[in-house]
Amino acid sequence: MRDEKTMKSERIYEGKVINLRVDTVELPDRKYSKREIVEHSGAVAIVAVNQEGKIILIKQFRKPVEEVLLEIPAGRIEPKEDPQDTALRELEEETGFKANKIVKLVEYYSTPGFSNEVLHIYLATELTTGIAKPDEDEYIETFPMTLEVAMEKIKSGEIKDSKAIIGILMYYKYYASI
Amino acid sequence: MRDEKTMKSERIYEGKVINLRVDTVELPDRKYSKREIVEHSGAVAIVAVNQEGKIILIKQFRKPVEEVLLEIPAGRIEPKEDPQDTALRELEEETGFKANKIVKLVEYYSTPGFSNEVLHIYLATELTTGIAKPDEDEYIETFPMTLEVAMEKIKSGEIKDSKAIIGILMYYKYYASI
Repeated sequence: MRDEKTMKSERIYEGKVINLRVDTVELPDRKYSKREIVEHSGAVAIVAVNQEGKIILIKQFRKPVEEVLLEIPAGRIEPKEDPQDTALRELEEETGFKANKIVKLVEYYSTPGFSNEVLHIYLATELTTGIAKPDEDEYIETFPMTLEVAMEKIKSGEIKDSKAIIGILMYYKYYASI
Repeated sequence: MRDEKTMKSERIYEGKVINLRVDTVELPDRKYSKREIVEHSGAVAIVAVNQEGKIILIKQFRKPVEEVLLEIPAGRIEPKEDPQDTALRELEEETGFKANKIVKLVEYYSTPGFSNEVLHIYLATELTTGIAKPDEDEYIETFPMTLEVAMEKIKSGEIKDSKAIIGILMYYKYYASI
């Protein structure tokens, strides 16, 4: 399968979280088409499981969808930061928990049709309590939940954030059954 | 939990697949912050299972990530189109298969941190063969795969598209065990 050669690349916007560019590409049949591309530096999300075996969910208002969503802790990777360090940092900032054990669950593209964002999901266990320090524009509440309840909330549609769904389902599939 | 009041909304770009706007919001502490929002009309994806019990995966070059990805069939919802009709239409356009049975698996936000895109995933079964009619800028190959192999490819990282991961895991969890 042939790729799409970039004939022109126009930068539309450079922002805080994302940039936008529009590429003109040459298709295999030599025709041209436009590709709108949202650039993102990548992010991590964390399935954090406490001593009672409960997953730490958080609630956060999300402006793009104008809703408070039930999610797992997450955050953007800083320049040159190792994603695993981002995961440990964001978990503590958002929830106050430090993890003494962390393993990678999965890595994927969130929306490869229009963005290059990569998501790295980690499983964090052996938690100890630290102090939450959310970013100044973040307002976060935490909700520990059994895997069974979290799975029910995916089925019912109450959990509707893709990274929470993937993190919980991967934890269910590969770890809960061990 | 209080929401974020929009104080100003600036339209940056209006495109083919996405629009971009930047909202200035008032936070609960009365401070202002910016929210970059990628507007998208929503999409569907389809876990299509053939008579042999194999899931129809497709390969498609994705410019934003400069890679050929293993995905499930998917497409954008047209204005006023019912998502289930989109699913049936896209399945046939991209793979040539008509589905005589279709049920909703899950509905979620792909990246609620910076976009309002909603994804509706359907399970399509009782397939019959029609004629593929991809869009003129789409080049698609199909790969039927057992659920077991697809699950392996999620674990190994060969399948790294979020909608394929969620669709396959939801099919595994709620239907394969029936």
